[in-house]
Amino acid sequence: LQNKELDSVLNEVLEQRNEERRKPKCPKGTRDMDPLQMAIREKAFTIIKSVFKRHGACEIDTPVFELKETLMGKYGEESKLIYDLEDQGGELLSLRYDLTVPFARFVSMHNFEKIKRFHIAKVYRRDNPQMNKGRFREFYQCDFDIAGTYSIMIPDSEVIKVLSEILEQLEIGEFVIKLNHRKFLDAMVELAGCEKRKFKAICSSVDKLDKEPWEKVREELIMMKGLTPEMCDKLEKFVKLVGKPMELLQKLKDEGIFAGHREGEETIKEMETLFEYLQAMNCIDRVSFDFSLARGLDYYTGLIYEAVLTDPNNRVGSIAGGGRYDGLVGMFAGKTIPAVGVSIGIERVFAILEEKLKKENSVRSTETQIYIAQIGKNLVAERLRICSELWAIGIKAETSYQDNPNNQRQMEYTLLNGIPLILFLGENELKEGVVKVKSLSKKEEYVIKRDELLQEIIQIVRDNPILL
Amino acid sequence: LQNKELDSVLNEVLEQRNEERRKPKCPKGTRDMDPLQMAIREKAFTIIKSVFKRHGACEIDTPVFELKETLMGKYGEESKLIYDLEDQGGELLSLRYDLTVPFARFVSMHNFEKIKRFHIAKVYRRDNPQMNKGRFREFYQCDFDIAGTYSIMIPDSEVIKVLSEILEQLEIGEFVIKLNHRKFLDAMVELAGCEKRKFKAICSSVDKLDKEPWEKVREELIMMKGLTPEMCDKLEKFVKLVGKPMELLQKLKDEGIFAGHREGEETIKEMETLFEYLQAMNCIDRVSFDFSLARGLDYYTGLIYEAVLTDPNNRVGSIAGGGRYDGLVGMFAGKTIPAVGVSIGIERVFAILEEKLKKENSVRSTETQIYIAQIGKNLVAERLRICSELWAIGIKAETSYQDNPNNQRQMEYTLLNGIPLILFLGENELKEGVVKVKSLSKKEEYVIKRDELLQEIIQIVRDNPILL
Repeated sequence: LQNKELDSVLNEVLEQRNEERRKPKCPKGTRDMDPLQMAIREKAFTIIKSVFKRHGACEIDTPVFELKETLMGKYGEESKLIYDLEDQGGELLSLRYDLTVPFARFVSMHNFEKIKRFHIAKVYRRDNPQMNKGRFREFYQCDFDIAGTYSIMIPDSEVIKVLSEILEQLEIGEFVIKLNHRKFLDAMVELAGCEKRKFKAICSSVDKLDKEPWEKVREELIMMKGLTPEMCDKLEKFVKLVGKPMELLQKLKDEGIFAGHREGEETIKEMETLFEYLQAMNCIDRVSFDFSLARGLDYYTGLIYEAVLTDPNNRVGSIAGGGRYDGLVGMFAGKTIPAVGVSIGIERVFAILEEKLKKENSVRSTETQIYIAQIGKNLVAERLRICSELWAIGIKAETSYQDNPNNQRQMEYTLLNGIPLILFLGENELKEGVVKVKSLSKKEEYVIKRDELLQEIIQIVRDNPILL
Repeated sequence: LQNKELDSVLNEVLEQRNEERRKPKCPKGTRDMDPLQMAIREKAFTIIKSVFKRHGACEIDTPVFELKETLMGKYGEESKLIYDLEDQGGELLSLRYDLTVPFARFVSMHNFEKIKRFHIAKVYRRDNPQMNKGRFREFYQCDFDIAGTYSIMIPDSEVIKVLSEILEQLEIGEFVIKLNHRKFLDAMVELAGCEKRKFKAICSSVDKLDKEPWEKVREELIMMKGLTPEMCDKLEKFVKLVGKPMELLQKLKDEGIFAGHREGEETIKEMETLFEYLQAMNCIDRVSFDFSLARGLDYYTGLIYEAVLTDPNNRVGSIAGGGRYDGLVGMFAGKTIPAVGVSIGIERVFAILEEKLKKENSVRSTETQIYIAQIGKNLVAERLRICSELWAIGIKAETSYQDNPNNQRQMEYTLLNGIPLILFLGENELKEGVVKVKSLSKKEEYVIKRDELLQEIIQIVRDNPILL
């Protein structure tokens, strides 16, 4: 063998060994959920689902991938972030990018005229992940939508109410729901004398106002979007309209800001109706009427909204968003089915809850209520018998998988896993027909007759609730 | 334009129009879950999860796709059924094929020495779908595994207990859990005088005995696998060993079937221990000791089992399976981490439950407890106010999204959705400070003072439980 060949063989062997030794990992932008994270996730989902159900929503699910053609042409520029599956000699498939397009496909395919549904599932985006900021390539969305032809602002107001209930009950800090209306944005652009075709470009600049000062946005509007200073002066008056719903509405009317503009005036009336309903549902205090909210998505046709956390320590930005989209479902159905909904960015919620619950030490990865320990030898079958009796009456019980576990280990396991009760099974006690139970939270000890075990344990478990 | 060109233009236009008119659909082998199916799915998951939790298991989740290299070389022939993602200029990715390999990767990546976890998630196989038989390309698996170095048969017996509790509590009919041991299969092949290298081929024939008579399997063994008639005669004696655990064990000992065969004799002792534990846990009656069970998977090293439904009307075959695999986790971890587990084929469970619950008419797609109806005009805000008060105390309430819904429609909605209570809001009653509530199940009517509404409703809801 020549030197060169030798090197190449050597490299190959080294590479292989390297390969073997390499730690397995998750794909870029994805992560495993460990048991503690799963417990927190379930906690959050339980709260969210119970709100959806309280409002009479049903649940649906769709496949994780769709025909490529179903997703094509729905996401504009962002389409490049869609994951495609390899062509393995069948259909062309893509992973779902959100839950809204699959929902529109679902409604049309199953001939629904109306539906109030929620859908909690993972979506996929080949984006630049920033995992420390909660931006992943695989992440959960939590969507609630009401589709159907209904009276003005009734479903819209319920979606706002649902969003505010969820954010209250998750207990992740103070929040505000910013509201605006697509038709106000249309009117604003028109009344500022801008060309209609620049609508999207103007909105995308205006929407930066939550992060940048007006001067910077103004500069962008003039330099990049070709607006005149006069146009910008007029726009400025609009985008600075922010306030409590009823007060700002009064101001719009008093100052005649949309006076003579038919759509503007109509939209004022719509907002009046919405605010009346939000007042009736006792959630108007959660809302800020904000003309600088100009969410990017093309398909919004009416009300738009975005929830942000206001706690200065939790600057995660937007945590949920949505609006009315009366055209999207019809793209599949061939007839108009209006819809309004909200999507909750649950990964940020998880991150906040994770930090909070770990700090409070108030989360466990299992729910075991009692640990069956043995003192002495050869008691496996008796331990399993007791577990089995407890399982049969719904009590969560565990025991060691060792034939003869030592005391230290059994105690450690119970403490480390936050199990509130430990039962000791001893050869001598067993002969006397008793067992001992210790409460680790209350530091109490009970001696119980073996044949009264179940009734007694039910009572003790009731007095020593698990943390979760 | 020439005729040919005209045709081609015409075809193009027609194709496009056809495209537009075409109904959207799901990818081959996948399906949407409608609200009723979702309610059933949740019912099943709740039962299954509560069993897992009662046994002290934690939950984990992993990404839907893995690095291609993680899955490579783990599934033998079946690898061709793996869905690959398109190479879009990053890592090479594949959709997960089961939950066992991702579990092994998880345990190794996060340096677990031991873990008792469950994982409920979708897996993907580019198989030939038979959707009416419950065979899909996207389907749920429900896995429970115990990894760690423990005493003989303790974790194994708990896995069997978990499986038997789940199948009992799902109430999908009678079942039996067939048990065998990899080492009995090894011994059987050896004692029949067959070559060791034919082990897999022989097992795959033997495993057909639940569907085919011995004569056919014997023929296959001789014609296709090259066994002699003498070998087959010896094998036949083994594979016909089926019976109640303790009885068959006694027979093995009495007749000295593995006498002098070290591994066979050791395995008899292992089984004796297992059966003692199953007896202690009161589930040995669910078990059949069956030498014809020869599950295909390469990686099993000890106990193997399979649950089948025995109701002749429910011939869906195997509904769950598993075993001990002491080598797999170590392939990633670089050290031996023994493991034992079970995977439940939940799609078949769904199908049986769906049929059963729809027949009993005992499933609803929503959980609404009371519908707020109006008689008269202009009561939207008042309806929403009442809903909001009810939501605040946890009652599931709905009202119409129409400004002035007619009586008929409101009544229909309540009945069709199985809502047990309907509250009528009338202009006149409102002036008198009262509302009416009707119980649709008990056919009773209550007149309630508006300012005593909440206390009264709590009581009435308690007396009129929803179906689910």
